[in-house]
Amino acid sequence: MQNSSGGIALVGFDADDTLWRSQDYFDEAQQRFEQIIARYVDLEDAGKRLYAYESRNIAFFGYGVKGMALSMIEAAVDITGASIRAADIGRIVQLAKELLQHPVEVLPGVRAAVEAVAARHPVVLITKGDLFHQEAKVRESGLSDLFRRIEIVSEKDPATYARLFEEFGVAAQRFLMVGNSLRSDIAPVLALGGWGVHVPYHTTWAHEAEAVVAQGGERMRSIAAIAELPQALQALEAVASDPQVIQP
Amino acid sequence: MQNSSGGIALVGFDADDTLWRSQDYFDEAQQRFEQIIARYVDLEDAGKRLYAYESRNIAFFGYGVKGMALSMIEAAVDITGASIRAADIGRIVQLAKELLQHPVEVLPGVRAAVEAVAARHPVVLITKGDLFHQEAKVRESGLSDLFRRIEIVSEKDPATYARLFEEFGVAAQRFLMVGNSLRSDIAPVLALGGWGVHVPYHTTWAHEAEAVVAQGGERMRSIAAIAELPQALQALEAVASDPQVIQP
Repeated sequence: MQNSSGGIALVGFDADDTLWRSQDYFDEAQQRFEQIIARYVDLEDAGKRLYAYESRNIAFFGYGVKGMALSMIEAAVDITGASIRAADIGRIVQLAKELLQHPVEVLPGVRAAVEAVAARHPVVLITKGDLFHQEAKVRESGLSDLFRRIEIVSEKDPATYARLFEEFGVAAQRFLMVGNSLRSDIAPVLALGGWGVHVPYHTTWAHEAEAVVAQGGERMRSIAAIAELPQALQALEAVASDPQVIQP
Repeated sequence: MQNSSGGIALVGFDADDTLWRSQDYFDEAQQRFEQIIARYVDLEDAGKRLYAYESRNIAFFGYGVKGMALSMIEAAVDITGASIRAADIGRIVQLAKELLQHPVEVLPGVRAAVEAVAARHPVVLITKGDLFHQEAKVRESGLSDLFRRIEIVSEKDPATYARLFEEFGVAAQRFLMVGNSLRSDIAPVLALGGWGVHVPYHTTWAHEAEAVVAQGGERMRSIAAIAELPQALQALEAVASDPQVIQP
Protein backbone atom coordinates (compact mmCIF):
# COMPACT_ATOMS: atom_id res chain seq x y z
CA MET A 1 0.00 0.00 0.00
CA GLN A 2 1.40 3.36 -0.91
CA ASN A 3 0.17 4.82 2.39
CA SER A 4 1.92 2.35 4.64
CA SER A 5 4.55 4.89 5.68
CA GLY A 6 1.96 7.62 6.28
CA GLY A 7 -0.34 8.09 9.26
CA ILE A 8 0.31 8.95 12.87
CA ALA A 9 3.13 6.93 14.47
CA LEU A 10 3.43 8.60 17.87
CA VAL A 11 1.11 10.70 20.06
CA GLY A 12 2.40 13.20 22.63
CA PHE A 13 0.40 14.51 25.57
CA ASP A 14 0.93 17.71 27.47
CA ALA A 15 0.44 17.35 31.24
CA ASP A 16 -0.60 20.51 33.17
CA ASP A 17 -4.23 21.40 32.40
CA THR A 18 -4.39 18.62 29.82
CA LEU A 19 -4.07 15.55 32.06
CA TRP A 20 -4.49 17.22 35.43
CA ARG A 21 -5.57 20.46 37.05
CA SER A 22 -2.78 23.03 37.39
CA GLN A 23 -3.56 26.62 36.41
CA ASP A 24 -6.38 26.80 38.98
CA TYR A 25 -3.77 26.44 41.73
CA PHE A 26 -1.61 29.17 40.21
CA ASP A 27 -4.66 31.44 39.85
CA GLU A 28 -5.49 30.87 43.50
CA ALA A 29 -1.90 31.61 44.56
CA GLN A 30 -2.04 34.83 42.58
CA GLN A 31 -5.24 35.86 44.35
CA ARG A 32 -3.56 35.27 47.69
CA PHE A 33 -0.58 37.32 46.53
CA GLU A 34 -2.94 40.17 45.60
CA GLN A 35 -4.59 39.97 49.03
CA ILE A 36 -1.20 40.30 50.72
CA ILE A 37 -0.24 43.27 48.54
CA ALA A 38 -3.61 44.92 49.20
CA ARG A 39 -2.59 45.37 52.86
CA TYR A 40 0.03 47.87 51.66
CA VAL A 41 -1.14 49.49 48.45
CA ASP A 42 -4.50 49.93 46.80
CA LEU A 43 -3.96 48.69 43.27
CA GLU A 44 -6.33 47.56 40.58
CA ASP A 45 -3.56 46.01 38.54
CA ALA A 46 -1.45 44.08 41.07
CA GLY A 47 -1.95 40.91 39.04
CA LYS A 48 -0.88 42.59 35.82
CA ARG A 49 2.19 44.03 37.52
CA LEU A 50 3.11 40.62 38.88
CA TYR A 51 2.85 39.18 35.39
CA ALA A 52 5.35 41.76 34.15
CA TYR A 53 7.88 40.42 36.71
CA GLU A 54 7.08 36.82 35.84
CA SER A 55 7.50 37.42 32.10
CA ARG A 56 10.80 39.20 32.51
CA ASN A 57 12.09 36.59 34.94
CA ILE A 58 11.41 33.59 32.69
CA ALA A 59 14.87 34.31 31.22
CA PHE A 60 16.38 33.85 34.70
CA PHE A 61 14.11 31.30 36.33
CA GLY A 62 12.36 29.35 33.58
CA TYR A 63 8.86 28.03 34.34
CA GLY A 64 7.41 26.63 37.52
CA VAL A 65 6.41 27.34 41.07
CA LYS A 66 9.82 28.31 42.47
CA GLY A 67 10.41 30.94 39.82
CA MET A 68 6.87 32.23 40.31
CA ALA A 69 7.47 32.55 44.06
CA LEU A 70 10.74 34.45 43.56
CA SER A 71 8.98 36.76 41.07
CA MET A 72 6.18 37.29 43.59
CA ILE A 73 8.69 38.20 46.30
CA GLU A 74 10.59 40.56 44.01
CA ALA A 75 7.34 42.17 42.86
CA ALA A 76 6.04 42.45 46.44
CA VAL A 77 9.18 44.29 47.56
CA ASP A 78 9.02 46.70 44.61
CA ILE A 79 5.26 47.25 44.47
CA THR A 80 5.03 48.06 48.18
CA GLY A 81 8.01 50.42 48.00
CA ALA A 82 9.93 47.98 50.20
CA SER A 83 7.36 48.41 52.98
CA ILE A 84 6.17 44.80 53.02
CA ARG A 85 6.78 43.04 56.34
CA ALA A 86 8.98 39.95 56.61
CA ALA A 87 6.06 37.90 57.92
CA ASP A 88 4.15 38.55 54.69
CA ILE A 89 7.19 37.54 52.65
CA GLY A 90 7.21 34.35 54.72
CA ARG A 91 3.57 33.82 53.67
CA ILE A 92 4.60 33.95 50.01
CA VAL A 93 7.24 31.24 50.61
CA GLN A 94 4.58 29.09 52.33
CA LEU A 95 2.22 29.68 49.43
CA ALA A 96 4.88 28.23 47.09
CA LYS A 97 5.35 25.20 49.33
CA GLU A 98 1.60 24.57 49.35
CA LEU A 99 1.46 24.89 45.58
CA LEU A 100 4.26 22.31 45.29
CA GLN A 101 2.36 19.91 47.53
CA HIS A 102 -1.19 20.16 46.24
CA PRO A 103 -2.72 16.80 45.38
CA VAL A 104 -2.69 15.83 41.71
CA GLU A 105 -6.23 15.84 40.40
CA VAL A 106 -6.48 13.96 37.10
CA LEU A 107 -9.11 15.62 34.89
CA PRO A 108 -12.34 13.74 34.10
CA GLY A 109 -12.13 11.32 31.20
CA VAL A 110 -8.35 11.52 30.93
CA ARG A 111 -7.41 7.96 31.81
CA ALA A 112 -9.98 6.48 29.42
CA ALA A 113 -8.91 8.82 26.60
CA VAL A 114 -5.19 8.13 27.04
CA GLU A 115 -5.85 4.39 27.28
CA ALA A 116 -7.90 4.49 24.07
CA VAL A 117 -5.10 6.28 22.22
CA ALA A 118 -2.39 4.08 23.78
CA ALA A 119 -4.20 0.99 22.52
CA ARG A 120 -3.53 2.11 18.94
CA HIS A 121 -0.32 4.20 19.16
CA PRO A 122 2.68 4.55 21.41
CA VAL A 123 2.14 7.61 23.62
CA VAL A 124 4.66 9.91 25.31
CA LEU A 125 4.25 12.68 27.84
CA ILE A 126 5.93 16.02 27.10
CA THR A 127 5.73 18.68 29.76
CA LYS A 128 7.65 21.83 30.54
CA GLY A 129 8.54 23.36 33.84
CA ASP A 130 10.28 22.38 37.00
CA LEU A 131 11.85 18.90 36.76
CA PHE A 132 11.42 18.09 40.43
CA HIS A 133 7.77 19.20 40.67
CA GLN A 134 6.73 17.67 37.33
CA GLU A 135 8.31 14.31 38.24
CA ALA A 136 6.40 14.34 41.52
CA LYS A 137 3.12 15.07 39.72
CA VAL A 138 3.68 12.34 37.12
CA ARG A 139 4.35 9.84 39.90
CA GLU A 140 1.29 10.92 41.87
CA SER A 141 -1.06 10.97 38.88
CA GLY A 142 -0.98 7.19 38.53
CA LEU A 143 -0.78 7.65 34.75
CA SER A 144 2.95 7.13 34.21
CA ASP A 145 2.52 3.45 33.27
CA LEU A 146 0.57 4.52 30.16
CA PHE A 147 3.45 6.48 28.67
CA ARG A 148 6.39 4.97 26.85
CA ARG A 149 8.54 7.99 27.70
CA ILE A 150 8.23 11.03 29.90
CA GLU A 151 10.08 14.12 28.72
CA ILE A 152 10.36 17.15 30.95
CA VAL A 153 11.75 20.07 28.96
CA SER A 154 12.61 23.66 29.79
CA GLU A 155 10.79 25.18 26.80
CA LYS A 156 8.29 23.87 24.26
CA ASP A 157 9.43 25.51 21.06
CA PRO A 158 10.09 24.07 17.60
CA ALA A 159 13.79 23.44 18.46
CA THR A 160 12.81 21.33 21.48
CA TYR A 161 10.22 19.33 19.53
CA ALA A 162 12.71 18.79 16.70
CA ARG A 163 15.26 17.39 19.19
CA LEU A 164 12.61 15.11 20.71
CA PHE A 165 11.51 13.81 17.29
CA GLU A 166 15.13 12.85 16.63
CA GLU A 167 15.40 11.10 20.00
CA PHE A 168 12.07 9.32 19.43
CA GLY A 169 13.10 8.40 15.89
CA VAL A 170 9.86 9.79 14.43
CA ALA A 171 9.27 12.25 11.57
CA ALA A 172 7.34 15.40 12.48
CA GLN A 173 4.78 14.43 9.81
CA ARG A 174 3.93 11.33 11.83
CA PHE A 175 3.69 12.97 15.26
CA LEU A 176 0.52 14.30 16.86
CA MET A 177 0.45 16.43 20.02
CA VAL A 178 -2.50 16.79 22.40
CA GLY A 179 -2.60 19.77 24.73
CA ASN A 180 -4.35 22.81 26.12
CA SER A 181 -1.80 25.44 25.06
CA LEU A 182 -1.84 26.67 21.48
CA ARG A 183 1.49 28.35 22.12
CA SER A 184 3.36 25.38 23.63
CA ASP A 185 1.56 22.28 22.41
CA ILE A 186 0.04 23.04 19.03
CA ALA A 187 1.77 25.90 17.17
CA PRO A 188 5.37 24.56 17.33
CA VAL A 189 4.31 21.05 16.28
CA LEU A 190 2.25 22.36 13.34
CA ALA A 191 5.19 24.59 12.38
CA LEU A 192 7.37 21.49 12.03
CA GLY A 193 4.78 19.71 9.90
CA GLY A 194 3.14 17.68 12.66
CA TRP A 195 -0.42 17.32 13.89
CA GLY A 196 -2.33 18.72 16.84
CA VAL A 197 -5.44 18.26 18.93
CA HIS A 198 -6.21 21.29 21.04
CA VAL A 199 -8.20 20.71 24.25
CA PRO A 200 -8.79 24.17 25.78
CA TYR A 201 -8.80 24.47 29.56
CA HIS A 202 -11.16 26.87 31.33
CA THR A 203 -8.30 29.08 32.53
CA THR A 204 -5.01 29.85 30.77
CA TRP A 205 -1.90 31.61 32.08
CA ALA A 206 -1.45 34.94 30.26
CA HIS A 207 1.90 33.68 28.93
CA GLU A 208 0.35 30.68 27.19
CA ALA A 209 -2.49 32.78 25.82
CA GLU A 210 0.06 34.95 23.96
CA ALA A 211 0.02 32.53 21.05
CA VAL A 212 0.57 33.25 17.42
CA VAL A 213 -0.98 30.13 16.00
CA ALA A 214 -0.41 29.15 12.45
CA GLN A 215 -3.60 28.02 10.83
CA GLY A 216 -3.42 24.30 11.27
CA GLY A 217 -6.04 23.73 8.63
CA GLU A 218 -6.34 20.05 7.96
CA ARG A 219 -3.67 19.13 10.48
CA MET A 220 -5.38 20.33 13.64
CA ARG A 221 -8.62 19.79 15.52
CA SER A 222 -10.07 21.56 18.56
CA ILE A 223 -12.20 19.51 20.91
CA ALA A 224 -14.31 20.59 23.87
CA ALA A 225 -13.43 17.63 26.10
CA ILE A 226 -10.72 14.98 26.19
CA ALA A 227 -13.40 12.30 25.72
CA GLU A 228 -13.63 13.46 22.10
CA LEU A 229 -9.94 12.74 21.53
CA PRO A 230 -10.16 9.23 20.03
CA GLN A 231 -12.67 10.47 17.45
CA ALA A 232 -10.62 13.59 16.59
CA LEU A 233 -7.52 11.42 16.25
CA GLN A 234 -9.31 9.11 13.86
CA ALA A 235 -10.45 12.06 11.74
CA LEU A 236 -6.88 13.40 11.55
CA GLU A 237 -5.52 9.95 10.78
CA ALA A 238 -7.79 9.76 7.78
CA VAL A 239 -6.16 12.96 6.54
CA ALA A 240 -2.65 11.85 7.53
CA SER A 241 -2.84 8.66 5.56
CA ASP A 242 -3.83 10.54 2.42
CA PRO A 243 -0.46 11.58 0.98
CA GLN A 244 -2.00 14.35 -1.09
CA VAL A 245 -3.00 16.17 2.10
CA ILE A 246 0.25 15.57 4.04
CA GLN A 247 2.18 17.72 1.61
CA PRO A 248 -0.34 20.33 0.53
CA MET B 1 38.05 -13.83 23.38
CA GLN B 2 36.09 -14.69 26.48
CA ASN B 3 36.37 -11.07 27.66
CA SER B 4 34.77 -9.49 24.61
CA SER B 5 31.57 -8.69 26.51
CA GLY B 6 33.45 -7.28 29.51
CA GLY B 7 35.10 -3.91 29.92
CA ILE B 8 33.71 -0.41 30.12
CA ALA B 9 31.11 0.38 27.44
CA LEU B 10 29.91 3.84 28.55
CA VAL B 11 31.39 6.63 30.66
CA GLY B 12 29.24 9.16 32.50
CA PHE B 13 30.42 12.57 33.69
CA ASP B 14 28.98 14.70 36.44
CA ALA B 15 28.90 18.42 35.61
CA ASP B 16 28.97 20.86 38.58
CA ASP B 17 32.44 20.90 40.18
CA THR B 18 33.56 18.10 37.88
CA LEU B 19 33.46 19.88 34.50
CA TRP B 20 32.98 23.44 35.69
CA ARG B 21 33.12 25.58 38.81
CA SER B 22 29.88 25.68 40.79
CA GLN B 23 30.12 25.28 44.57
CA ASP B 24 32.38 28.35 44.84
CA TYR B 25 29.47 30.48 43.66
CA PHE B 26 27.12 28.89 46.17
CA ASP B 27 29.69 29.39 48.96
CA GLU B 28 29.99 33.04 48.02
CA ALA B 29 26.20 33.45 47.96
CA GLN B 30 26.04 31.92 51.41
CA GLN B 31 28.65 34.38 52.70
CA ARG B 32 26.57 37.25 51.37
CA PHE B 33 23.49 35.77 53.04
CA GLU B 34 25.38 35.65 56.34
CA GLN B 35 26.44 39.28 55.92
CA ILE B 36 22.81 40.31 55.41
CA ILE B 37 21.68 38.34 58.48
CA ALA B 38 24.52 39.84 60.55
CA ARG B 39 22.82 43.23 60.28
CA TYR B 40 20.01 41.87 62.46
CA VAL B 41 21.37 39.15 64.69
CA ASP B 42 24.81 38.23 65.95
CA LEU B 43 25.12 34.54 65.17
CA GLU B 44 28.09 32.26 64.88
CA ASP B 45 26.03 29.56 63.20
CA ALA B 46 23.93 31.39 60.57
CA GLY B 47 25.38 29.14 57.85
CA LYS B 48 24.57 26.00 59.80
CA ARG B 49 21.03 27.24 60.43
CA LEU B 50 20.56 28.00 56.75
CA TYR B 51 21.69 24.48 55.91
CA ALA B 52 18.96 23.07 58.18
CA TYR B 53 16.37 24.94 56.09
CA GLU B 54 17.98 23.84 52.82
CA SER B 55 18.09 20.18 53.88
CA ARG B 56 14.49 20.16 55.01
CA ASN B 57 13.33 21.97 51.88
CA ILE B 58 14.93 19.56 49.39
CA ALA B 59 11.70 17.56 49.74
CA PHE B 60 9.75 20.61 48.54
CA PHE B 61 12.16 22.35 46.19
CA GLY B 62 14.67 19.78 44.96
CA TYR B 63 18.18 21.04 44.16
CA GLY B 64 19.32 24.26 42.57
CA VAL B 65 19.56 28.01 42.93
CA LYS B 66 15.84 28.81 43.09
CA GLY B 67 15.21 26.39 45.94
CA MET B 68 18.31 27.70 47.73
CA ALA B 69 17.03 31.28 47.39
CA LEU B 70 13.60 30.38 48.77
CA SER B 71 15.27 28.56 51.68
CA MET B 72 17.45 31.61 52.30
CA ILE B 73 14.39 33.87 52.36
CA GLU B 74 12.49 31.54 54.67
CA ALA B 75 15.52 31.23 56.96
CA ALA B 76 16.12 35.00 56.93
CA VAL B 77 12.54 35.69 58.03
CA ASP B 78 12.73 33.12 60.84
CA ILE B 79 16.28 33.79 62.03
CA THR B 80 15.71 37.53 62.30
CA GLY B 81 12.42 37.05 64.14
CA ALA B 82 10.65 38.56 61.11
CA SER B 83 12.59 41.80 61.56
CA ILE B 84 14.44 41.66 58.22
CA ARG B 85 13.62 44.57 55.95
CA ALA B 86 12.03 44.07 52.53
CA ALA B 87 15.03 45.68 50.82
CA ASP B 88 17.30 42.96 52.24
CA ILE B 89 14.89 40.28 51.04
CA GLY B 90 15.14 41.94 47.63
CA ARG B 91 18.93 41.54 47.88
CA ILE B 92 18.54 37.80 48.38
CA VAL B 93 16.41 37.56 45.20
CA GLN B 94 19.09 39.51 43.30
CA LEU B 95 21.76 37.22 44.69
CA ALA B 96 19.86 34.26 43.18
CA LYS B 97 19.61 36.00 39.82
CA GLU B 98 23.35 36.67 39.81
CA LEU B 99 24.07 33.06 40.71
CA LEU B 100 21.90 31.95 37.77
CA GLN B 101 23.81 34.23 35.41
CA HIS B 102 27.41 33.69 36.43
CA PRO B 103 29.70 32.76 33.55
CA VAL B 104 30.46 29.06 33.14
CA GLU B 105 34.11 28.46 33.94
CA VAL B 106 35.24 25.07 32.63
CA LEU B 107 37.86 23.62 35.00
CA PRO B 108 41.48 23.24 33.82
CA GLY B 109 42.21 20.10 31.85
CA VAL B 110 38.56 19.14 31.45
CA ARG B 111 38.19 19.42 27.70
CA ALA B 112 41.35 17.40 27.04
CA ALA B 113 40.35 14.71 29.54
CA VAL B 114 36.79 14.36 28.19
CA GLU B 115 38.12 14.28 24.62
CA ALA B 116 40.62 11.57 25.53
CA VAL B 117 37.88 9.44 27.08
CA ALA B 118 35.42 10.19 24.25
CA ALA B 119 37.98 8.96 21.72
CA ARG B 120 37.71 5.47 23.23
CA HIS B 121 34.18 5.30 24.69
CA PRO B 122 30.82 6.97 24.20
CA VAL B 123 30.38 9.56 26.95
CA VAL B 124 27.23 10.98 28.53
CA LEU B 125 26.67 13.85 30.93
CA ILE B 126 24.52 13.18 34.01
CA THR B 127 23.76 16.11 36.25
CA LYS B 128 21.17 16.86 38.87
CA GLY B 129 19.48 20.10 39.74
CA ASP B 130 17.44 22.72 38.03
CA LEU B 131 16.63 21.79 34.41
CA PHE B 132 16.59 25.36 33.16
CA HIS B 133 19.86 26.41 34.80
CA GLN B 134 21.72 23.20 33.97
CA GLU B 135 20.70 23.39 30.30
CA ALA B 136 21.98 26.96 30.16
CA LYS B 137 25.31 25.91 31.70
CA VAL B 138 25.74 22.97 29.34
CA ARG B 139 25.11 25.28 26.36
CA GLU B 140 27.52 27.91 27.65
CA SER B 141 30.28 25.44 28.54
CA GLY B 142 30.99 24.65 24.90
CA LEU B 143 31.34 20.98 25.87
CA SER B 144 27.93 19.70 24.80
CA ASP B 145 29.19 18.43 21.43
CA LEU B 146 31.40 15.89 23.24
CA PHE B 147 28.49 14.11 24.90
CA ARG B 148 26.24 11.61 23.19
CA ARG B 149 23.45 12.36 25.65
CA ILE B 150 22.80 14.91 28.35
CA GLU B 151 20.62 13.76 31.23
CA ILE B 152 19.38 16.22 33.81
CA VAL B 153 17.82 14.34 36.70
CA SER B 154 16.16 15.39 39.93
CA GLU B 155 18.13 12.99 42.14
CA LYS B 156 21.23 10.85 41.66
CA ASP B 157 20.34 7.71 43.54
CA PRO B 158 20.55 4.03 42.55
CA ALA B 159 16.97 4.09 41.18
CA THR B 160 17.81 6.98 38.84
CA TYR B 161 21.03 5.37 37.61
CA ALA B 162 19.20 2.07 37.08
CA ARG B 163 16.58 3.84 34.94
CA LEU B 164 19.32 5.58 32.93
CA PHE B 165 21.21 2.31 32.35
CA GLU B 166 18.00 0.86 30.91
CA GLU B 167 17.50 3.90 28.67
CA PHE B 168 21.15 3.77 27.57
CA GLY B 169 20.93 0.03 27.01
CA VAL B 170 24.04 -0.63 29.12
CA ALA B 171 24.62 -3.03 32.02
CA ALA B 172 25.75 -1.40 35.29
CA GLN B 173 28.84 -3.63 35.16
CA ARG B 174 29.93 -1.86 31.99
CA PHE B 175 29.27 1.72 33.13
CA LEU B 176 31.82 4.04 34.73
CA MET B 177 30.94 7.36 36.36
CA VAL B 178 33.33 10.29 36.85
CA GLY B 179 32.45 12.93 39.44
CA ASN B 180 33.34 14.96 42.49
CA SER B 181 30.55 13.74 44.77
CA LEU B 182 30.95 10.40 46.51
CA ARG B 183 27.28 10.57 47.48
CA SER B 184 25.80 11.35 44.06
CA ASP B 185 28.34 10.15 41.51
CA ILE B 186 30.24 7.24 43.01
CA ALA B 187 28.32 5.42 45.77
CA PRO B 188 25.06 4.73 43.84
CA VAL B 189 26.95 3.52 40.75
CA LEU B 190 29.18 1.20 42.81
CA ALA B 191 26.08 -0.06 44.63
CA LEU B 192 24.62 -1.17 41.29
CA GLY B 193 27.83 -2.95 40.29
CA GLY B 194 29.34 -0.17 38.19
CA TRP B 195 32.64 1.66 38.26
CA GLY B 196 33.71 5.05 39.53
CA VAL B 197 36.46 7.64 39.30
CA HIS B 198 36.28 10.20 42.08
CA VAL B 199 37.78 13.64 41.37
CA PRO B 200 37.42 15.64 44.60
CA TYR B 201 36.76 19.36 44.35
CA HIS B 202 38.26 21.80 46.83
CA THR B 203 34.88 22.66 48.34
CA THR B 204 31.84 20.42 48.78
CA TRP B 205 28.30 21.30 49.79
CA ALA B 206 27.51 19.82 53.21
CA HIS B 207 24.74 17.74 51.62
CA GLU B 208 27.09 16.00 49.20
CA ALA B 209 29.65 15.45 51.93
CA GLU B 210 27.09 13.40 53.88
CA ALA B 211 28.09 10.30 51.98
CA VAL B 212 28.05 6.73 53.13
CA VAL B 213 30.37 5.28 50.54
CA ALA B 214 30.60 1.60 50.04
CA GLN B 215 34.17 0.49 49.70
CA GLY B 216 34.59 0.43 45.98
CA GLY B 217 37.71 -1.63 46.23
CA GLU B 218 38.86 -2.66 42.80
CA ARG B 219 36.01 -0.83 41.07
CA MET B 220 36.90 2.72 42.08
CA ARG B 221 39.84 5.10 41.83
CA SER B 222 40.38 8.54 43.35
CA ILE B 223 42.43 11.01 41.37
CA ALA B 224 43.76 14.43 42.33
CA ALA B 225 43.12 16.10 38.97
CA ILE B 226 40.98 15.37 35.93
CA ALA B 227 44.17 15.10 33.82
CA GLU B 228 44.77 11.74 35.52
CA LEU B 229 41.43 10.41 34.28
CA PRO B 230 42.58 8.60 31.11
CA GLN B 231 45.19 6.71 33.13
CA ALA B 232 42.75 5.83 35.94
CA LEU B 233 40.23 4.66 33.36
CA GLN B 234 42.80 2.41 31.75
CA ALA B 235 43.69 0.90 35.10
CA LEU B 236 40.03 0.18 35.85
CA GLU B 237 39.48 -1.21 32.37
CA ALA B 238 42.22 -3.71 32.98
CA VAL B 239 40.26 -4.88 36.02
CA ALA B 240 36.91 -4.70 34.22
CA SER B 241 38.00 -6.96 31.41
CA ASP B 242 39.11 -9.62 33.89
CA PRO B 243 35.87 -11.54 34.52
CA GLN B 244 37.16 -12.95 37.80
CA VAL B 245 37.29 -9.45 39.27
CA ILE B 246 33.95 -8.20 37.90
CA GLN B 247 32.09 -10.64 40.10
CA PRO B 248 34.22 -10.80 43.21
